Amino acid sequence: MKTINVALIGYKFMGRAHSNAYRQAAAFFDLPAKPVLKVLVGRDQAAAQQVADQFGWEEVATDWRQVVERCDVDLIDIASPGKTHRDIALAAAQCGKHILCEKPLANTLEEAKAMWYAAEEANVVNMVNFNYRRTPAVALAKQMIEAGEIGEIRQWRSAYLQDWIIDPAFPLVWRLQSAISGSGALGDIGAHSLDLARYLVGEIEAVTSLTKTFITERPLATATTGLSATGGSTRGPVTVDDAAIWLAKFAGGAIGTFEATRMAPGRRNYNHFEISGSKGSLGFNFERMNELEFYRHDDPAGRQGWRTIQATEPSHPYVSAWWPAGHGLGYEHTFTHAVADLCKAIAEGGKASPDFADGAKTQAVLEAILRSAKSGAWEKTSMA
Amino acid sequence: MKTINVALIGYKFMGRAHSNAYRQAAAFFDLPAKPVLKVLVGRDQAAAQQVADQFGWEEVATDWRQVVERCDVDLIDIASPGKTHRDIALAAAQCGKHILCEKPLANTLEEAKAMWYAAEEANVVNMVNFNYRRTPAVALAKQMIEAGEIGEIRQWRSAYLQDWIIDPAFPLVWRLQSAISGSGALGDIGAHSLDLARYLVGEIEAVTSLTKTFITERPLATATTGLSATGGSTRGPVTVDDAAIWLAKFAGGAIGTFEATRMAPGRRNYNHFEISGSKGSLGFNFERMNELEFYRHDDPAGRQGWRTIQATEPSHPYVSAWWPAGHGLGYEHTFTHAVADLCKAIAEGGKASPDFADGAKTQAVLEAILRSAKSGAWEKTSMA
Amino acid sequence: MKTINVALIGYKFMGRAHSNAYRQAAAFFDLPAKPVLKVLVGRDQAAAQQVADQFGWEEVATDWRQVVERCDVDLIDIASPGKTHRDIALAAAQCGKHILCEKPLANTLEEAKAMWYAAEEANVVNMVNFNYRRTPAVALAKQMIEAGEIGEIRQWRSAYLQDWIIDPAFPLVWRLQSAISGSGALGDIGAHSLDLARYLVGEIEAVTSLTKTFITERPLATATTGLSATGGSTRGPVTVDDAAIWLAKFAGGAIGTFEATRMAPGRRNYNHFEISGSKGSLGFNFERMNELEFYRHDDPAGRQGWRTIQATEPSHPYVSAWWPAGHGLGYEHTFTHAVADLCKAIAEGGKASPDFADGAKTQAVLEAILRSAKSGAWEKTSMA
Amino acid sequence: MKTINVALIGYKFMGRAHSNAYRQAAAFFDLPAKPVLKVLVGRDQAAAQQVADQFGWEEVATDWRQVVERCDVDLIDIASPGKTHRDIALAAAQCGKHILCEKPLANTLEEAKAMWYAAEEANVVNMVNFNYRRTPAVALAKQMIEAGEIGEIRQWRSAYLQDWIIDPAFPLVWRLQSAISGSGALGDIGAHSLDLARYLVGEIEAVTSLTKTFITERPLATATTGLSATGGSTRGPVTVDDAAIWLAKFAGGAIGTFEATRMAPGRRNYNHFEISGSKGSLGFNFERMNELEFYRHDDPAGRQGWRTIQATEPSHPYVSAWWPAGHGLGYEHTFTHAVADLCKAIAEGGKASPDFADGAKTQAVLEAILRSAKSGAWEKTSMA
Repeated sequence: MKTINVALIGYKFMGRAHSNAYRQAAAFFDLPAKPVLKVLVGRDQAAAQQVADQFGWEEVATDWRQVVERCDVDLIDIASPGKTHRDIALAAAQCGKHILCEKPLANTLEEAKAMWYAAEEANVVNMVNFNYRRTPAVALAKQMIEAGEIGEIRQWRSAYLQDWIIDPAFPLVWRLQSAISGSGALGDIGAHSLDLARYLVGEIEAVTSLTKTFITERPLATATTGLSATGGSTRGPVTVDDAAIWLAKFAGGAIGTFEATRMAPGRRNYNHFEISGSKGSLGFNFERMNELEFYRHDDPAGRQGWRTIQATEPSHPYVSAWWPAGHGLGYEHTFTHAVADLCKAIAEGGKASPDFADGAKTQAVLEAILRSAKSGAWEKTSMA
Repeated sequence: MKTINVALIGYKFMGRAHSNAYRQAAAFFDLPAKPVLKVLVGRDQAAAQQVADQFGWEEVATDWRQVVERCDVDLIDIASPGKTHRDIALAAAQCGKHILCEKPLANTLEEAKAMWYAAEEANVVNMVNFNYRRTPAVALAKQMIEAGEIGEIRQWRSAYLQDWIIDPAFPLVWRLQSAISGSGALGDIGAHSLDLARYLVGEIEAVTSLTKTFITERPLATATTGLSATGGSTRGPVTVDDAAIWLAKFAGGAIGTFEATRMAPGRRNYNHFEISGSKGSLGFNFERMNELEFYRHDDPAGRQGWRTIQATEPSHPYVSAWWPAGHGLGYEHTFTHAVADLCKAIAEGGKASPDFADGAKTQAVLEAILRSAKSGAWEKTSMA
Repeated sequence: MKTINVALIGYKFMGRAHSNAYRQAAAFFDLPAKPVLKVLVGRDQAAAQQVADQFGWEEVATDWRQVVERCDVDLIDIASPGKTHRDIALAAAQCGKHILCEKPLANTLEEAKAMWYAAEEANVVNMVNFNYRRTPAVALAKQMIEAGEIGEIRQWRSAYLQDWIIDPAFPLVWRLQSAISGSGALGDIGAHSLDLARYLVGEIEAVTSLTKTFITERPLATATTGLSATGGSTRGPVTVDDAAIWLAKFAGGAIGTFEATRMAPGRRNYNHFEISGSKGSLGFNFERMNELEFYRHDDPAGRQGWRTIQATEPSHPYVSAWWPAGHGLGYEHTFTHAVADLCKAIAEGGKASPDFADGAKTQAVLEAILRSAKSGAWEKTSMA
Repeated sequence: MKTINVALIGYKFMGRAHSNAYRQAAAFFDLPAKPVLKVLVGRDQAAAQQVADQFGWEEVATDWRQVVERCDVDLIDIASPGKTHRDIALAAAQCGKHILCEKPLANTLEEAKAMWYAAEEANVVNMVNFNYRRTPAVALAKQMIEAGEIGEIRQWRSAYLQDWIIDPAFPLVWRLQSAISGSGALGDIGAHSLDLARYLVGEIEAVTSLTKTFITERPLATATTGLSATGGSTRGPVTVDDAAIWLAKFAGGAIGTFEATRMAPGRRNYNHFEISGSKGSLGFNFERMNELEFYRHDDPAGRQGWRTIQATEPSHPYVSAWWPAGHGLGYEHTFTHAVADLCKAIAEGGKASPDFADGAKTQAVLEAILRSAKSGAWEKTSMA
């Protein structure tokens, strides 16, 4: 059987999610080529080794540059912080490796475009991991839209709400520093909403926006574990947005409202959207990820109503690989689905989706949003 | 017992809702002055007489000017179309009558200000009927905010969604003609969201917006009953917005997203808002008007969660006049509560709320939204 | 126009609900005969007079026997405690008056049968007020079942849950004393579930049950207002059930589970049922009384899901008399609908539903449940 | 590091779920002894080999008797049909192997007791896999009950609803034949509800029940895959219950209603319970497995309400091994948690829970329910 030797760069939250995905894709999906957990790359060798032992990586390495050049590696998976993405991707492309990259593709549009062009030129399979597309309920929504089940799309409304930094004592972790993370809620979770909007509705032409930092100073972080952290008595400035809101004009004529915030008490990972079409509506909230809300205008009068489709039927995307109807999936499955699709694309010589071009286009929208937040005007989502 | 003689101008949807409110307020609330259904005014005498008979109005009249001058009338209730509001209100104020006016207060800010100044100068009790404030769940939200239960408010997100015109065959009723109604979804339902935002969060300083008419031509209406209508084969242009979306900056530092649309399939009267504060959150949707969603950040770790308060407890605003807990109220009760509060204000020489000043301020925001829709820039909500 | 002169016996919780219903039915429904609020009967004249003034009763009386014999009274409405029902109904029937009686029809099957036979013999219109049938969502469920939309009914599951006596300090009000109220949760709210089951599924043949009193002693009541009350330091025995649960066999082959309890924390008036048919399902919960849940097995595979019908469309039962879609109704409307239907039956010489025969049959089931609670065996719901 | 060599008997639906659980427990949990996927046992060698390859089993075998005697096997996992459980378990115990057994423990109480006594005598760790206990929300409910957060438990109401056999054309698979499966919905899913009730409330003393087969004949199965199957034109009798309903008396004084059915359209895997205590309530539905509903009577008046706890906090049971709050888990995680707990018990010489004694006690209740369905009387859940 064909195999795909994987090198994964990064071993923390995303590194664990990716490690699991390769194992589970191989176990549950009937793949034309099976991913092999070849080498896990991390600067802290001992910490990386521990994760490698847990998930069955064959080796551990500390220098990604050496790994990228290895002949026995087919796929480079970039799960390290955003500012490292470009250099790794460019090196990987130059070596002719396929590439999976965590979102956002890069911290700037310029970097993102460089990655896109490099992958294109090298003709390698490339994918940016906007994992929420691979929730079965979301992939089902895509199928329904393409089949015309809600007609022409007129309105998008989304709100990606979290609340993990509402406590002013929560420290100044790297995600709150623009030098490392680019932006705050906008790039971290707003980027997911943008990808979903592009996937389900189409290209965004222009935006007008507002960003806000409610808590402008926080204790410097003294220790970090995943998303939790503790802070000391020294304080520093928060240099990213706590919340971003924007309006959008889609190329196809639809209009949209967006919100990304880490300041919504009670919303842990509320990645929500609702789409209004000429013939019906769709709604989704990741906190109930196994459900898709559907309203069909053509139902008989007096019998119309929003219905909750449990997106756990064998006929729904990705589900037949798992359990019987009503036995829901979890967060990590979205990564497994991405890896399964990527392995198929590599084995069959196809294209992956969303690819680096998609990643760059989303980055262009993010930059337009940041420009608008400064200018106060509508900004085009130019790729130039 | 003291009485308040009422003259109601208008007898259709709003006329019926107001007629019912006077009767029910008198029956269920312990009022310091009891409203008397004195005279119902309508241009079509026979049609008005029928409504008068149903609800027990003592008389019917066809000329509001004569009625406004009658000595035996204490309160003028304006439930006729927006373009008539100013003239009636000015005449009523000149005659020293108290005034209740349906929302929006007027079709333009200029008219609204004239009404406000006239009422102020005449020193009459004046109220604009943004009835959703009087939903017990909303009034409870106000109490909780004032008691600091969700801390400092940071974010407002609202969507007032309806779907009664999604069918392109739905005809060009007066609500779709700017000459009569001023604007479309914006003034009709967006105005309600603005009033709720001002009530619960505070003044709005600036907005940026987008309006859209998806169906630009419709059959001319041949017959209308309430919100339903039939159309012929001749067509005319829709001159109002089908949907309006906007971002807002509040004076107190909060930010907000708003949407008003008549193009959201499956949403019949989804008047929804969610408020994020520093210590908690509140959520409301009029389609479940007897419920208030509440999240309290200070609940013990591991026990936090959005809770559904059934706003039907005797301790909740307005509820003790009605039924035991769990026996919910309906749409029309919001009008009854408005009338009960108005009667108290009149009897006790107090002020009503929201008053014409509030109505004018909301009108100023509506105009800023329309200006921004044209300019593409942030617009101040100036009263000048 | 034809009129129906009403005498209402009882002026407390149910008296107010009935008073309101006559007024509102006349105002909102196009009735062939209009109810006239003739005389309100209560032993405490002053208290009754106050309610009469609120709702517009022409007169007040203290002796129901005299009222029943009056020539100018057409309809006797019995809203007094259960133990008084039989005597009033028999006298009313003897005088040829139409009769509306609050549920349960009587405290014993024997009394209920006597009432039924008397009404039948006198050939007067008779109705027992199981008001929940008249919730639009429930009446819609009935229409859908009759149209075969969920196929042959196989299973009923209901739970009528309340929590107003969970506090052991809540006093020994009359509803907790079997001498006055017959039974506890069973007769008070379980009777409603039985009526709904008979209405929607059909006759119940046999039951097996369990009843339980969790708090066996309570303070004697010192003052009572509606459902709230205060207690003193002396205590007495609770002689009714706090909770009753039972299984049922329906004549048509369906099976059912039932629960009635006043001991379910957080459930204020959770009158819930779900019906499983061969082709679909229906669900209802009075705490969201404007919604009907519907599942249609014949929906396309992959698009099936429970849908929430907002039972507020003009095409839904009773709704066209009220407001546009999405503008929900409240608890009291169920009474208004009952009165509207009753007035039509009287004016048109028809039969009302549910009538005293229905009331007696429900009483027979209640008695079978009590017998089973003692015998531990299945008991037939014999009328003998 | 210590290891536990596992032999798994069965490779279909449950076999895959168990295979995955060992891998995932080792990867995500910090275990004192790591499970090793030693040998997978199946009568169809080729089919078993395929599953073995997918999940990484070292070997495949076809004769469980030989495997049970192997020195290099520490744990026998029985995931084969119910009628095989006893013989395997007895052999395993005799060889001193630890045992994990799928539910229900056996097809009869007699078999179950034999297994219990054998495991006890051999002093091996034994667990019956009622996996729903290990849903974080359910384990959280257990913690809350033990901490007294809902006070003394008074009522249990559960309904385990499925709908996979509502189509009369669905064939006569082995789960519909009593000779193989013992009972129908009762033993398959009702057993889960009984285990949860015993776990959360306590022992059940007596039951009264009703069972029903709505579709008494079905096409003989011609092919089966998981829960889906196709049938031919020959028909045979269904010999198990489609639905079972029962009332229960708990030893501690609580009372309960139960339902298990495969005939509830729209309910795919609706494993639902609600518990009423003296101080609060808890509710759960596996179709929303990441949520626990909680009502706290001691919340301030006017602020009480059912709250939805997302049982995805690091502080909740099992969750810290996985992802940040709001990133939910799926069905298979319940098996992983069971295996993790079992490995700890084996490594640390403790007891597993639920053990074979629990399995036998649940079996005793199942038999009492079947006896009652025949006798029509209350039946004690005797172990004799």
